[in-house]
Amino acid sequence: MERIRLLSDVDPETRERLAFLAVTHALCGVSRRNTVLDGSRSETGAEHSWHVALCAVVLGPAFAPSVDLGRVLQMLALHDLPEIVVGDTPAYDAGARAVAVARERQAARELLAQLPEGPELDALYAEFVEEATDEARFANAVDRLQPILLHSACDGAAWRKRAQGRTKLDEFVAKITDLWPPLGPLTAALVEEAQRRGDLIDDRVA
Amino acid sequence: MERIRLLSDVDPETRERLAFLAVTHALCGVSRRNTVLDGSRSETGAEHSWHVALCAVVLGPAFAPSVDLGRVLQMLALHDLPEIVVGDTPAYDAGARAVAVARERQAARELLAQLPEGPELDALYAEFVEEATDEARFANAVDRLQPILLHSACDGAAWRKRAQGRTKLDEFVAKITDLWPPLGPLTAALVEEAQRRGDLIDDRVA
Repeated sequence: MERIRLLSDVDPETRERLAFLAVTHALCGVSRRNTVLDGSRSETGAEHSWHVALCAVVLGPAFAPSVDLGRVLQMLALHDLPEIVVGDTPAYDAGARAVAVARERQAARELLAQLPEGPELDALYAEFVEEATDEARFANAVDRLQPILLHSACDGAAWRKRAQGRTKLDEFVAKITDLWPPLGPLTAALVEEAQRRGDLIDDRVA
Repeated sequence: MERIRLLSDVDPETRERLAFLAVTHALCGVSRRNTVLDGSRSETGAEHSWHVALCAVVLGPAFAPSVDLGRVLQMLALHDLPEIVVGDTPAYDAGARAVAVARERQAARELLAQLPEGPELDALYAEFVEEATDEARFANAVDRLQPILLHSACDGAAWRKRAQGRTKLDEFVAKITDLWPPLGPLTAALVEEAQRRGDLIDDRVA
């Protein structure tokens, strides 16, 4: 790794870019709560980042035709880089998420500052976490939809294993609906089907 | 998985999109010849796809300011989907690559035909493999640069293990230089440094 920082015959800015790209490959070492399709291991942060991008490419034309998809994809390529420093903090844990947000913000600032375009990319990251634009809101909605879709594709195995309550899933549906209303109904349908198949504990207050 | 194809309360086109996204998560099950940074396992096709996208985001502003980065990122999100069907065919094996290209083209056609935007996305995939536009040429160049960068970041361990010859790397440098000349010098510098550090067997004919 050190060799890239010391690479000769390359200008300092290019070295910074290459060193940043080498270091950030570590997102492959961040484990998430979802598994891959065959359940054999956890999905990694890098795999999630790719699959969310693919979700945006496939869902964008129908559900967000007016957003700048290229800007969405740039955000999504960056959005989980802070987890290299902070680790994955599941959306299921609201208390831990609140603490993690500030740490992730700082980690993004420090990581991106290594790049010549650090300020622009940090502004793009801020736009994403602040849900400040249509692009950021769609990107956030897809980022939250992807794990629900993947849990469904894994027949809810991880949900059943941890006795996942329905109420928390309803909160996710509400958040996705708030971020990007057209994605609400399909998310609700995935959750309703999981409930019907017995993957979720019905902890809703009557 | 089957539940997504049968999902009620969702229109047929949305079901197709969700089923496609579920099936294609299998790119996480495709192993490549590169390892992750700590050398503990192979990089997956999904991880490579994300990291190539990040490379495009980071290298684009300096080396390809005139290309449509959004289009590049859409291509890169799709570009390795055929490996779900065909598996990874290393660029090091020219004979196997020639056979694989036709199989990958067919696999892309069949996979993307499951989507309402199948024709448009298949055209985008074709643009990529035919290196038909500046966007496709930059995307292909970055796709070939990423493994060289990752090998360097892993201190050339996988190259040393398989007694990698220098000549093949010089061919990659030539191909990247042909696809996108501004990326040639930095690729050449990575290979030269690997040679200097003893990662590559010098099989060049004098």
